[in-house]
Amino acid sequence: MNDLFLRACRREPVERTPVWFLRQAGRYMAEYREIRKKHSLLEICRTPELASAVTLQPVTKLGVDAAILFSDLLVPLEPLGVPVEFIAGEGPVISDPLRNAEQIASLHDFDPREELFYTMEAIRLLRQELTVPLVGFAGAPFTLASYAVEGGASRHYEHTKCLMYNDTSTWHRLAELLAGVVTSYLTAQVEAGAQAVQLFDSWVGALSPSDYREFVLPHSQSILSALSKLGVPVIHFGTGTAGILELLHEAGGDVIGVDWRVELGWAWDHIGRDVAIQGNLDPLLLHASEATLFRAADHVLASAGDSPGHIFNLGHGILPNTSVERVKALVEHVHRVTERS
Amino acid sequence: MNDLFLRACRREPVERTPVWFLRQAGRYMAEYREIRKKHSLLEICRTPELASAVTLQPVTKLGVDAAILFSDLLVPLEPLGVPVEFIAGEGPVISDPLRNAEQIASLHDFDPREELFYTMEAIRLLRQELTVPLVGFAGAPFTLASYAVEGGASRHYEHTKCLMYNDTSTWHRLAELLAGVVTSYLTAQVEAGAQAVQLFDSWVGALSPSDYREFVLPHSQSILSALSKLGVPVIHFGTGTAGILELLHEAGGDVIGVDWRVELGWAWDHIGRDVAIQGNLDPLLLHASEATLFRAADHVLASAGDSPGHIFNLGHGILPNTSVERVKALVEHVHRVTERS
Repeated sequence: MNDLFLRACRREPVERTPVWFLRQAGRYMAEYREIRKKHSLLEICRTPELASAVTLQPVTKLGVDAAILFSDLLVPLEPLGVPVEFIAGEGPVISDPLRNAEQIASLHDFDPREELFYTMEAIRLLRQELTVPLVGFAGAPFTLASYAVEGGASRHYEHTKCLMYNDTSTWHRLAELLAGVVTSYLTAQVEAGAQAVQLFDSWVGALSPSDYREFVLPHSQSILSALSKLGVPVIHFGTGTAGILELLHEAGGDVIGVDWRVELGWAWDHIGRDVAIQGNLDPLLLHASEATLFRAADHVLASAGDSPGHIFNLGHGILPNTSVERVKALVEHVHRVTERS
Repeated sequence: MNDLFLRACRREPVERTPVWFLRQAGRYMAEYREIRKKHSLLEICRTPELASAVTLQPVTKLGVDAAILFSDLLVPLEPLGVPVEFIAGEGPVISDPLRNAEQIASLHDFDPREELFYTMEAIRLLRQELTVPLVGFAGAPFTLASYAVEGGASRHYEHTKCLMYNDTSTWHRLAELLAGVVTSYLTAQVEAGAQAVQLFDSWVGALSPSDYREFVLPHSQSILSALSKLGVPVIHFGTGTAGILELLHEAGGDVIGVDWRVELGWAWDHIGRDVAIQGNLDPLLLHASEATLFRAADHVLASAGDSPGHIFNLGHGILPNTSVERVKALVEHVHRVTERS
């Protein structure tokens, strides 16, 4: 069992820096595209054998130090009463977005152990196969709510922010409901065998620090505080968070995931080296030459310095038209240059 | 002549905090929509009388302390050899985006005094009318290049970053050409009467600090250094820049414009209070109740504190479906609460 990733999450010394990638399974891999020819994204998420097979693809191929369960952030929305369609080229579409108190009052709380049982089943299957730690995940309340309220991906988060500003108690009711579901869901994932979990607040960088503090922090904190009792490392991730890093840290998490829009070492100094850090290469560097890519990876490693607790990753997911060979070369490079005798 | 804005740019004490807004002229105003019924966006930009009329609309209506010339960031692209269409609901579209060295080698440098004479003519007209300072503007090389290379607005800036990474000398050639054009254009605006200029590097927050330093900083610096000799304040603006603020400051500008994704006071402390700062309310707060809006504005003002040199603004442009009355109420509120006896 390769436990480099788990040790780095706990800021223990490691022989070499562990590496894994956001969206390390997906469209850029031929093996994934093969499965997608026969199955929709949701079919894969909801079929434990398929989710497990797709999760394993990059582990075998790339030599990464952790696996992340293949699933979609939005699977909890349907059982809540918010059906999601995935439309090719467009991403997720919610045709009846949540825009008022009535709609939000009519959402149904549910037990993820039942409604999302397939995730836990995939985790159990994976634990029989894997020789690296398995990371479970869920979306954080703001990011989940932003899809449900906007109806899909968004540029200005107009409806979500208007709900926060203009019907604050309804916003908090929605965020609280989501926080409860996410806490149960991640707890169930850990009980099924996930050895770490990541809370994705991918779009939270759209908020001002004071809006984050008022509208988001209490809900993320309630999740992260419940999870901290489970004994597995918790990664708290967002993008565009350079201005709210201290607040993300205050909300919780053993590891803070940062994107490339901030120097990793600067971010780490700001939040304090009493937590681990994950990141933070720009995924587009995987479209550069090997020399440029390696130079940028070396910069990330130098920025992390010698403190224990750095997990090498991208700042966001691998993009579809990325070369698998280039990703593999990056794993080998990071392993090679961080090898400690 | 109300010179509060110019004095704040120079960090001189002011009787009350000056206010103006990014995109203070535009679709949210009925007077603007009237003119747009008869004229396209480009027609307005290219007709000094129309550009001048549209520039004046918010000044009269809102009581702001500065006017910003109505124009579009992309007007310099066409004379360079990159035609732009503005498609309703889609924004700017460049049907033949710059993707290779040959295309970039074939661009033609030009004299903005000739090809963009209408801008300078609008400035001359405006100076006869205005009793507040007039701000000229241009896009910075990264932001202009991102449109020209991507073909429009972008999410990942994939082609722009690939050009930087994989054909670095061509990237620098493009950025240098743009820097030259922008320097001449802003210089001509000042000579025509602009009393301050703003360099919009709106999308530069997409870059890592090291990419900013390598690929963008030298070009923005060359513009800002040339402009610093003209004797008018220069505002250097970007969004999502919390992680690169020190570098923006290093590139230059008398005023740094920041968006709401960072605490204004924190940002100011980071770059140092030896420059002025502009910002930084989330434009979506104009969609909140007056009470919520005023509370958020008070937070920005408290964050700025008592140092001279704060110019109140939004973190980005006013959104189309914003209430003019709400914007006006915000101007009055900021004036009222910052009134110094």
